[in-house]
Amino acid sequence: VRRVLVTGASGFLGAHCLAALAARGWSDVHAVSRSAGCARGVTWHACDLFDAGALASLVQSLRPSHTLHLAWTATPGKYWTSPDNELWAAASMRLLEELARAGARRLVCAGSCAEYSWKYGLCSEKTTPLAPNSPYGKSKHALQMLLSSTGSSLGVSTAWGRVFFPYGPYEHRDRLTSYVIRSLLAGERALCTTGDHRRDFLYAGDVADAFVTLLESDLDGPINIGSGEAIAVKTVVAAIGKCIGRPELIQLGARPLLADEPDLLVADVQRLRDQLGWSPHTTLAQGINESVEFWKRHG
Amino acid sequence: VRRVLVTGASGFLGAHCLAALAARGWSDVHAVSRSAGCARGVTWHACDLFDAGALASLVQSLRPSHTLHLAWTATPGKYWTSPDNELWAAASMRLLEELARAGARRLVCAGSCAEYSWKYGLCSEKTTPLAPNSPYGKSKHALQMLLSSTGSSLGVSTAWGRVFFPYGPYEHRDRLTSYVIRSLLAGERALCTTGDHRRDFLYAGDVADAFVTLLESDLDGPINIGSGEAIAVKTVVAAIGKCIGRPELIQLGARPLLADEPDLLVADVQRLRDQLGWSPHTTLAQGINESVEFWKRHG
Repeated sequence: VRRVLVTGASGFLGAHCLAALAARGWSDVHAVSRSAGCARGVTWHACDLFDAGALASLVQSLRPSHTLHLAWTATPGKYWTSPDNELWAAASMRLLEELARAGARRLVCAGSCAEYSWKYGLCSEKTTPLAPNSPYGKSKHALQMLLSSTGSSLGVSTAWGRVFFPYGPYEHRDRLTSYVIRSLLAGERALCTTGDHRRDFLYAGDVADAFVTLLESDLDGPINIGSGEAIAVKTVVAAIGKCIGRPELIQLGARPLLADEPDLLVADVQRLRDQLGWSPHTTLAQGINESVEFWKRHG
Repeated sequence: VRRVLVTGASGFLGAHCLAALAARGWSDVHAVSRSAGCARGVTWHACDLFDAGALASLVQSLRPSHTLHLAWTATPGKYWTSPDNELWAAASMRLLEELARAGARRLVCAGSCAEYSWKYGLCSEKTTPLAPNSPYGKSKHALQMLLSSTGSSLGVSTAWGRVFFPYGPYEHRDRLTSYVIRSLLAGERALCTTGDHRRDFLYAGDVADAFVTLLESDLDGPINIGSGEAIAVKTVVAAIGKCIGRPELIQLGARPLLADEPDLLVADVQRLRDQLGWSPHTTLAQGINESVEFWKRHG
């Protein structure tokens, strides 16, 4: 019997993962977030995962076979240095321990490209140094190391999907693609950097599909979840301009790039492709179109 | 007012740190271990640090300004893969949180050369990849990352002393120098590897003196605590043979080297020497002599 618990279910990737679980035939789906949400066919639970007692009660009453742990503080501009990062690492370890006590089989967590050193451009699970600069990256990577050494001793199979640059519906309104889309839809200028830096963008629906595929597999350890393609930020922005038909509102070079932003960050997707057997479904034009349609409805 | 709490006080480094604190004029010294011990001028507390309630009570009642956190599972042959490693990481984070609540100023913890990748020989805080292979190294390094990102946000100054190859009195009887000394003192053969591999050995009294110096400083982050010298294992063993006067009992090559033992592991001690202003006091001959005298009394 398969029962899945999704944490952070009300968040950006959470929304896409609930849809991906439904699409892949998961019928006994439990979602948790601080305040209850709703989604068709999903049983929702309100729980503050920082509350150890509440977390224990939730897990012991549900006894999920599988867990997709996405919950983390992700407020743009704040999450890099928030003291919540360490609290999430600690709460996540408690989650693993409670899952083990409840006889869980599988736990998949969301990691980040921020765990890697950003000096090398390509981020490979095997060869790129793990030298996170931020409290966010450090806490994520610390948790990954603790999970990998603890999961097997507790009898829970674990995997760790490192997310790069997801975009799509439900993205925070202040993040890059949402901001540009909302600006252009409102007929306002979108102030951008030069956009010459390249990132590994992946449509959030694809990120979610990869996470659910990972959940269904028995791969363990870290695995990059990216497209494997380095796309210039200006290319993404131009795709939005084209989709909405207002390219003249895009102001490249109107904002400085932050000092520590690297030129290139791209996932090595060999493990994703060859070991998990997964590759992206959605083109940039399709993904941008979905995002634009979302903001037309929610703007 | 300075008050120091020493965890793991009944252990190998703990014994030396209590002596080093006394030697450097610390008068209000509190020691904690699972079962109470004793040491002159030290107030001892029995506490299981895995018990969150007991840990909180201890810290809130003592309210130490300074803490030297040495406690960890260190049973030879077992600690590398023990599930205790993760429990220690979790308990150590609780210790930091309780110290912050109690208004503590400074926390210094024991890290390990096992946090580094062992492919490079030299272990430098700045440049050597942190790629621990073992649950022990992973948990230690995970804790270091969490401390470094959390300590400052909680207002507690933290540092992390990475220990290499300490030897001396109170070392576990089955570890290298203790085993060879006990064998030779008993007139028995000591079965050794070829001893060609080089390690950074440092007399435990010196390790302790460096830890107390670090505790008194305001350096933060990781700092190697080593000699900076790569000494062949056979050189250490020969020094024992010479000290005891039974070199013929040493059987080099009688044991295989474990498959994953690197040829060379040595600390980059630039930070220790230049930023902390510390260097070793004890020669190998002196340190071995102290160890031999210890086993004559305790054998």
